[in-house]
Amino acid sequence: MPNEVKIAHIGVAVADVSAAAAFYQDVLEAALTPHEDADDAAIVSLPFGDVDIELLEPRSDDGPIGKFLSKRGPGIHHICFRVPNLDAALQRCRDRGYRLIDPEPRTGADGRRIAFLHPKSTSGILLELTE
Amino acid sequence: MPNEVKIAHIGVAVADVSAAAAFYQDVLEAALTPHEDADDAAIVSLPFGDVDIELLEPRSDDGPIGKFLSKRGPGIHHICFRVPNLDAALQRCRDRGYRLIDPEPRTGADGRRIAFLHPKSTSGILLELTE
Repeated sequence: MPNEVKIAHIGVAVADVSAAAAFYQDVLEAALTPHEDADDAAIVSLPFGDVDIELLEPRSDDGPIGKFLSKRGPGIHHICFRVPNLDAALQRCRDRGYRLIDPEPRTGADGRRIAFLHPKSTSGILLELTE
Repeated sequence: MPNEVKIAHIGVAVADVSAAAAFYQDVLEAALTPHEDADDAAIVSLPFGDVDIELLEPRSDDGPIGKFLSKRGPGIHHICFRVPNLDAALQRCRDRGYRLIDPEPRTGADGRRIAFLHPKSTSGILLELTE
């Protein structure tokens, strides 16, 4: 049976979404979706098949994206996987001792239920789960 | 027209592929493909739809994966995009002044033609192009 879990998007922290998007438009022929805002960041999505590159430009220096950018410079901030059942996936994390940032699902910017896992449990990757 | 460029895989540097793979098997129900070797690393692929998570365990400390792991710890090493025409994509990079690590395509471990772009040109992401 093919795995029903898919990669939904890859979040990339950038100083300027328009400047960063130019590469994906110029070289990889991606189409821009309209800007949206989430948490502390402006977001531009660039679809590649079913997976989006999400460029995240901080709106403040002290939110999570602003802090990441100050500390590490531009780069991949997180990967989001879409699972068929978020509650069941979080229970599997608890059962196996994987560390959760969000012990229970919360509502993301676009109304989706999401939860973040701690990079200590996932090979250094900040990992978001959604349904 | 939908974009023909797709994300092929996300390469993740890890100290131990079996330990790192456990999370993806336990929580995200991914199937392991057989190990293979490329450049200086052992590779384990975990497919999610059309996109693979490639776990890369260095075989030496002084190859690119070994150096990355020593310097930065485990985490995302690169993203690989599959393009319809690699030569045309590299020409678009040259035309726009995006920096190439491989000025011409070379042959990757599994016989694919590949070229790496410099993170300075791609928001801090080491980016691999393949056909």
